Amino acid sequence: MTSTQTSPLTFLKGHGTENDFVIVPDAENAVDLPAALVARLCDRRAGIGGDGVLHVVRSAAHPDARHLADEAEWFMDYRNADGSVAEMCGNGVRVFARYLEHAGHVTAGEVAVATRGGVKRVHLDKDGSVTVRMGRAVLPEDGVTVTVGERSWPARNVNMGNPHAVAFVDSLDHAGKLDDEPPYEPAGVYPDGVNIEFVADRGPRHVAMRVHERGAAETRSCGTGACAVAVATARRDGADPALSGAPVTYTVDVLGGTLVITEHPDGEIEMTGPAVIVAEGTVDPAWLAPRIETVND
Amino acid sequence: MTSTQTSPLTFLKGHGTENDFVIVPDAENAVDLPAALVARLCDRRAGIGGDGVLHVVRSAAHPDARHLADEAEWFMDYRNADGSVAEMCGNGVRVFARYLEHAGHVTAGEVAVATRGGVKRVHLDKDGSVTVRMGRAVLPEDGVTVTVGERSWPARNVNMGNPHAVAFVDSLDHAGKLDDEPPYEPAGVYPDGVNIEFVADRGPRHVAMRVHERGAAETRSCGTGACAVAVATARRDGADPALSGAPVTYTVDVLGGTLVITEHPDGEIEMTGPAVIVAEGTVDPAWLAPRIETVND
Repeated sequence: MTSTQTSPLTFLKGHGTENDFVIVPDAENAVDLPAALVARLCDRRAGIGGDGVLHVVRSAAHPDARHLADEAEWFMDYRNADGSVAEMCGNGVRVFARYLEHAGHVTAGEVAVATRGGVKRVHLDKDGSVTVRMGRAVLPEDGVTVTVGERSWPARNVNMGNPHAVAFVDSLDHAGKLDDEPPYEPAGVYPDGVNIEFVADRGPRHVAMRVHERGAAETRSCGTGACAVAVATARRDGADPALSGAPVTYTVDVLGGTLVITEHPDGEIEMTGPAVIVAEGTVDPAWLAPRIETVND
Repeated sequence: MTSTQTSPLTFLKGHGTENDFVIVPDAENAVDLPAALVARLCDRRAGIGGDGVLHVVRSAAHPDARHLADEAEWFMDYRNADGSVAEMCGNGVRVFARYLEHAGHVTAGEVAVATRGGVKRVHLDKDGSVTVRMGRAVLPEDGVTVTVGERSWPARNVNMGNPHAVAFVDSLDHAGKLDDEPPYEPAGVYPDGVNIEFVADRGPRHVAMRVHERGAAETRSCGTGACAVAVATARRDGADPALSGAPVTYTVDVLGGTLVITEHPDGEIEMTGPAVIVAEGTVDPAWLAPRIETVND
């Protein structure tokens, strides 16, 4: 674990609504994955390319998951593209479960996945989609006004463990290029920044969204964002499972595909979406030379 | 060739100064590669990801190269990321030659590669770099003025088969974000658009550049751009191999690495640079579902 990885690695590449991952199968936790190697694997030009790495390790073999080994055989050691550790990723855990099935470690049905955010129960559906529980939404009363160009919208404040501002628009084109974060006020509502979703109606309980992710840019998909959008839209439409006692389901189109979000009377939110393995192969860490930064002044 | 590809494909991924390619070995031209499949292979999130596909075919097996089979055993059937056909790619042909060596088809030294732009003679150097002849530069007298923000620079007009405007700057930061094409005038100098290079000195016969590629955005590397920059810098420095009878060599740093450009007395320009194979594996076309575009209004 302290030595530098020099032998070739087995990898797969997969995505969930185009949130994509380099999967590194490593049952016995024998692969050394320092942040620099993760960053190189995720480099879209000099490496494989991905939004993060799904390091697949038996829970019993990883110090961060050993205590969960009785509940979940496999641990999703999730790494962000910069090599830092993350607790959970809603699109990632679907792809992780799809990989377990692809590799023959599990069959369709319920799968328990250990993560740094606890054990997640995932359902591998027969149609190729995967369902994951995303936790509960909190809806603070204070909201913001989001502005793009000449237009402004009130945005609903939804917290899915991370903060969201959900704005309903007549046309998703009104969100503009979304290269930069749209300004919002009052800024104090989101002291740690916010993910901003723009939502347009598509039909009964069916919306489409675009999202600017906190600290990044527009992305093809945001799992917690889709959940926040479904809950905000339900409340706008006068639907609240906690009051009615019946689950409410919304279809949410994102740039990278379609997610189906169900909110249950106990508040638990389930997200169903595709999870696809695209390729598999080997990568030699020796080929992944450190990125050269010769040009910056 | 007219049937749809359904069996898994062997692929490799490689790059030259971070201009990256999906390599599809297919000696007997048995793989069906319609534009839609190329686009999916090059998709960075739902596919493998690359700037283009290097389809590796024996010249004798491809109608576009059969007439070159006596001169060059292998044909670089180059495809742009959108699936369209291209004649040549200076970074791509280095990676193509590296693949031929990797696969054991050739050994280090001179390799002839058939392209739609004719037979290219490439040299595989023992240090892992590859040298390719890039043709001659033409330097029209008319130039333009390029503007970024408050600053403007005169730019040298260099044609490498494609048009370039080379501006010398004190700091590459002055080129700004380069998301959009910097304005230039008079526009009539480049009726078909232009690649715009910003160049800063680094030392004797050593410069660094950033480039906005025509119709695209800032890229990590541009082979013809590096050649145009070397020639423009040589002329600025009073060096002209046609007059002196001696070759002139410049080192050109790009964002994705370093290229070495030599202009010979007969005008021929050689480019030497790295070419790296990063990974190899299999991809199942059935996994590469058509991109969903549900969100656009």
